[in-house]
Amino acid sequence: MDRDTIAWDAENGTIEFLDQTLLPGEVRIVRCGDVERLAQAIRRLEIRGAPALGVAGAYGVALAVHRSTARDLSALQQEASHAADILAATRPTAVNLAWGTSRVLSRVMASASPDEAKDAAIREAKAIATEDVELCKRIGEHGAALLPDACTVLTHCNAGALACVRWGTALGVIRSAVEAGKQVSVIACETRPLFQGSRLTAWELANDGIDVRVIPDSAAAHLMHKGRIDAVVVGADRVTNDTVFNKIGTYMHAVCARHHAVPFYVAAPYSTFDAASSEGDVVIELRSRDEIAWCGDRLLLPAGVDALNYAFDATPLDLVTALVTERGVFHPPVSTEGLNRARRTI
Amino acid sequence: MDRDTIAWDAENGTIEFLDQTLLPGEVRIVRCGDVERLAQAIRRLEIRGAPALGVAGAYGVALAVHRSTARDLSALQQEASHAADILAATRPTAVNLAWGTSRVLSRVMASASPDEAKDAAIREAKAIATEDVELCKRIGEHGAALLPDACTVLTHCNAGALACVRWGTALGVIRSAVEAGKQVSVIACETRPLFQGSRLTAWELANDGIDVRVIPDSAAAHLMHKGRIDAVVVGADRVTNDTVFNKIGTYMHAVCARHHAVPFYVAAPYSTFDAASSEGDVVIELRSRDEIAWCGDRLLLPAGVDALNYAFDATPLDLVTALVTERGVFHPPVSTEGLNRARRTI
Repeated sequence: MDRDTIAWDAENGTIEFLDQTLLPGEVRIVRCGDVERLAQAIRRLEIRGAPALGVAGAYGVALAVHRSTARDLSALQQEASHAADILAATRPTAVNLAWGTSRVLSRVMASASPDEAKDAAIREAKAIATEDVELCKRIGEHGAALLPDACTVLTHCNAGALACVRWGTALGVIRSAVEAGKQVSVIACETRPLFQGSRLTAWELANDGIDVRVIPDSAAAHLMHKGRIDAVVVGADRVTNDTVFNKIGTYMHAVCARHHAVPFYVAAPYSTFDAASSEGDVVIELRSRDEIAWCGDRLLLPAGVDALNYAFDATPLDLVTALVTERGVFHPPVSTEGLNRARRTI
Repeated sequence: MDRDTIAWDAENGTIEFLDQTLLPGEVRIVRCGDVERLAQAIRRLEIRGAPALGVAGAYGVALAVHRSTARDLSALQQEASHAADILAATRPTAVNLAWGTSRVLSRVMASASPDEAKDAAIREAKAIATEDVELCKRIGEHGAALLPDACTVLTHCNAGALACVRWGTALGVIRSAVEAGKQVSVIACETRPLFQGSRLTAWELANDGIDVRVIPDSAAAHLMHKGRIDAVVVGADRVTNDTVFNKIGTYMHAVCARHHAVPFYVAAPYSTFDAASSEGDVVIELRSRDEIAWCGDRLLLPAGVDALNYAFDATPLDLVTALVTERGVFHPPVSTEGLNRARRTI
């Protein structure tokens, strides 16, 4: 991609982001000058993906401070705190969001004057965005080393630039491999029910000139059977001491990869690790029936029939060939020592 | 269902069928009085499913003969032959269609007068429809015996009443189990890309008062992991001496069922068996990119990105717990002797 998923426009004092709900039909850059509009964008999934949400929260608080006309520090701090509350409430289960808002807010609270607060807020938000890019690059480099010089990689959902600021985690591995001169073709699973694979992953890889084709999620095993998949690389929403939680469908790919002796890699930042928890501690979100019952204007499910719409599934670590993080590659079984203990709700 | 998928209306001298493209939003019965309209219905998938297509072909030739104003036998036979050609050409790979038209045509050709031909054509077409129902009932009874008294069955695509005249093959097993007093809940995989699971299977089971819920295809393994699936029952398009060919996604369910020690049953009429062929002899149809790129009015795939849209996949017989046919239950490895050698192109 030739632009960041979300960025600060210093000239206009606004946040610029790509509206992901319109992809792949339309590439619309939204210029956002107030916190309410940003909150709406997060609620409507115009911005999505855990790392991108953290950056959005950070820029949102910075925006409120930057736009404030308050003359005394205490009033400014109150406005910043109010903005952080609004943003964190948009998706209460997204911890990255609250983490991003609170990192910027703490800088505002530690400032000695309104001017210092304005400077500090923007600086901190930009630092978070920069860190995200660097972290993805390191994940990419570690993961790229695992891929053969010429290979076809299967991925699921979108753990790409669009879920971060740039580069991506699972797609970061693919980008780094391509950058290193490897010939990588990608099979993107469309990812029902919200089609992040066909709408987002295919779009961002094609934009970068990386060879990508899309399949229904159910066709992955067939391609493995035909010997056409050399590795599976996916992201993660949370990694406990025994389990990877990620988009529904990840587990089926892991089982089928093991059956066909295809390596199965999980690429995720260290902050996704939650060594204090086990599979049983995590409640998997059940999402709306509507996502299964409708697609565009098309009715798919008869009235009175219910859907089971799990957002995530649970892949035991013993089906994972390696965990790829910014600090290196871990081969399960993974020691719980040294793992970040930050709890995350998915 | 309270009516057959396709039937002869003697009072009006027409074919009545259910337009499956409109389900589940609208239940529209089409009364069809000419062969061209029937051919259109088959091309547009208003009627689908191999057994149902065989019956449609048979009724189509009977309709042409019934409606004919020809006074001499030879002219009538020519009209019947022309109708058979039109119908068989609608979906050239659907052998059931040609099988149905030729069975009725041969009766017309063997008749001694126009009146005898008209009688014989209708009688033969009705016989084909009746046989189809009886065959499904026998498959159902054999399969029902394999299911526990209380169980949750996972199925894929639609191997139901809508693919036949009544009862169905995989769904016939479920209906027979319910009729025998067993408590069966069904998990229907939505079946991308054409949603036969959510649109058709959920609709026909709910109409019969059978408990059914729909999941994305990718969620099946997760439910197995949670211990919520007691058996998988699917249909088949062709069974060779080593492989079951069925809707894309079937293979992934078979691999995941084996991983979780869940029984995996294939319910199909004996005529589906093709013991003369092996996996390598069968070419799997690649269907249109449009089925992946669009859903209703919604664009899902960026321009310039291709899709791999395999209609079917290949499940090795060693992943199949049992084949359920009208002649009984076979546990692989299956002897090729005694298997019907009719070649089928899928």
